[in-house]
Amino acid sequence: MDKLTNKTKDNINLNPIRRGGFVTPTVHEYASKYLDGYSICDTCKGWLEDIEKPPLCKISDLLLSHYPMDHSIMTFGAREAMALAIKAIVPKGGTVVVDSNRHYSSILAIESVDAQFIEVESSGYPEYKIDPASFREAIKEYVKENNKNPDLILLTHVDGNWGNLVNAEKVGEIALEFEIPFLLNAAYSAGRFKFNPKEMHADLVAISGHKSFGSTGPVGALLYKQEFANGIERKSPTYSNKNINVLGCTVRGTASAAFYQALSELDERLKRWDEVIKNTRYFVDKMEELSKGGIVQLGEKPKNHDVVYFETPILYEIGEKHRKKGYFLYDELKKRNITGIKQGRTKGFKLSIYGLSQREIDHVINTFREIINEQ
Amino acid sequence: MDKLTNKTKDNINLNPIRRGGFVTPTVHEYASKYLDGYSICDTCKGWLEDIEKPPLCKISDLLLSHYPMDHSIMTFGAREAMALAIKAIVPKGGTVVVDSNRHYSSILAIESVDAQFIEVESSGYPEYKIDPASFREAIKEYVKENNKNPDLILLTHVDGNWGNLVNAEKVGEIALEFEIPFLLNAAYSAGRFKFNPKEMHADLVAISGHKSFGSTGPVGALLYKQEFANGIERKSPTYSNKNINVLGCTVRGTASAAFYQALSELDERLKRWDEVIKNTRYFVDKMEELSKGGIVQLGEKPKNHDVVYFETPILYEIGEKHRKKGYFLYDELKKRNITGIKQGRTKGFKLSIYGLSQREIDHVINTFREIINEQ
Repeated sequence: MDKLTNKTKDNINLNPIRRGGFVTPTVHEYASKYLDGYSICDTCKGWLEDIEKPPLCKISDLLLSHYPMDHSIMTFGAREAMALAIKAIVPKGGTVVVDSNRHYSSILAIESVDAQFIEVESSGYPEYKIDPASFREAIKEYVKENNKNPDLILLTHVDGNWGNLVNAEKVGEIALEFEIPFLLNAAYSAGRFKFNPKEMHADLVAISGHKSFGSTGPVGALLYKQEFANGIERKSPTYSNKNINVLGCTVRGTASAAFYQALSELDERLKRWDEVIKNTRYFVDKMEELSKGGIVQLGEKPKNHDVVYFETPILYEIGEKHRKKGYFLYDELKKRNITGIKQGRTKGFKLSIYGLSQREIDHVINTFREIINEQ
Repeated sequence: MDKLTNKTKDNINLNPIRRGGFVTPTVHEYASKYLDGYSICDTCKGWLEDIEKPPLCKISDLLLSHYPMDHSIMTFGAREAMALAIKAIVPKGGTVVVDSNRHYSSILAIESVDAQFIEVESSGYPEYKIDPASFREAIKEYVKENNKNPDLILLTHVDGNWGNLVNAEKVGEIALEFEIPFLLNAAYSAGRFKFNPKEMHADLVAISGHKSFGSTGPVGALLYKQEFANGIERKSPTYSNKNINVLGCTVRGTASAAFYQALSELDERLKRWDEVIKNTRYFVDKMEELSKGGIVQLGEKPKNHDVVYFETPILYEIGEKHRKKGYFLYDELKKRNITGIKQGRTKGFKLSIYGLSQREIDHVINTFREIINEQ
């Protein structure tokens, strides 16, 4: 996977929000052509996603051919996609059932329409798994108390903390059973691996270009079924060809061009997923072997995603005795050109080796070995 | 002004939405460093505009030092800034008084909160001027009928069609008189020339980085007075440090880095405004001289802004007789490396010479001369 990492050879950034966002040289080159303000708009005839040069008009087909749904619309990211879906579906005072591993912006999107949420709890320490059946329980309880359905199910396909992959199809079946619209937050899944949202009975899917497609940001999209088209593509009474929900236009900048180019390379990218999982499991095994119980992977085991959370009591102990306290870890990693773990963090942290070569992964493992042995 | 135009020497783009968006080589270089997804987020501690590397934390001070207000917040552009202001101020069913030269997205922003609008008409053909006193009339009439004030005055400082500069201070005085919040859409003014929104009694100002600051898009900002801070910075009940109105974060991509760099060069940029006006007036004079009554500048005279609208009956007449019909103009301009006027347009069109050198401006004039004389 050297192609993805040539920009990071001298600096291995382990931050999970970064690893799926590194662009290929071709995306970099393509994005660089559109750094002038409004330079993607030269041939616009009224709607961003009809622009032929750069071929933003192909983005929707590229997306839907990989993640089958009826329609798509570009947004500034997954959070804006969730907010758009929620605005179209959930009334003021309405209720969304959401998993407790959700991103904070899921809650903000719900609060942005003055709705409320019910959280489906995870299994807690150490795996923090979301059991799809818990959604049924939560919905039943809500219906019993309110005599009506909640307005939406929002599932985090893969969360950004534990990197747990939830069985979305099972949640989709529950959504279908109760006839509740089902929004999938695929910020950490779409762009990394292939899946079929229609087979999962998802009605809407929020995706992130800069988080998982190797695109310049800010860009994402909402994929949705036909029945939600009117709500999402809400037309202005004054300008019948303009979508009020997106104020007439979305990503009028280089990120949409970069996203097009990244999508053109998506087949190649998705092929690497099996290797990513193999590498992640190898990485977790080797890291845990460094110290008996001193480095423990939390979240589901074995890993089905590259986002890994480690509980690291051994690093905390070292920090306690170190003159730099918890800051020693950041400094020691930086000496070896490794970044992406927050300064001061030693009790536990999340990271990802997505897109790193075997050599780079081993460099990370060896670095932690040295840190543990040298202190 | 060669510094601004080195990217366009071979291709003079006259589209008014493009001319204020061409980046300098230094902005280009700076933006290029942040093309990886989330690459501006490495040192984020929870709020985009506190990031020190790149120094997004300086954006607000840079903005407010040039356009004095109490606070600023980044948005994806001027339309999102207007929508944010309107969301914070105008209730569902509320009313906004707006000038008839406003951008379509002003109306969408009003419709996005299910509010309505009253339009203050311009003077119509040929100058399309907005008389500040018309706002007083419109407000008085509204108050008479509704026994209450409208909720907001929205003024387009400079419109993007005629390029008319409105006396915002006079409108501000009316806003003050009636105690109605005053939102200034400065998409075509802030970044091009200096003004003091506080002296204009503006309460909120929407600006556009990619339209007028020579920044990569999408980026803009809303500037606002302290009394509107609570409404604009609406905090989540669940995450007390997160702003619901912007879903916790805004321009998480290269455009915010580009905007920082563009703002660092703003003093130099603003110094050129007198020359831009001088050049625009020269350009208008020379273009009108090409044909008696065949090319006529609409909008206010003399020009106080670079956006120029020409009514061009002579070009329409040529097109009528031409085998390519109205498309001849686009093709003839393209032969001389001039773009930015929509294909098929001959009756009239808007353009701008912002940032063009004297040599380039003369090339445009000579090209039109040739087109008229040769046909």
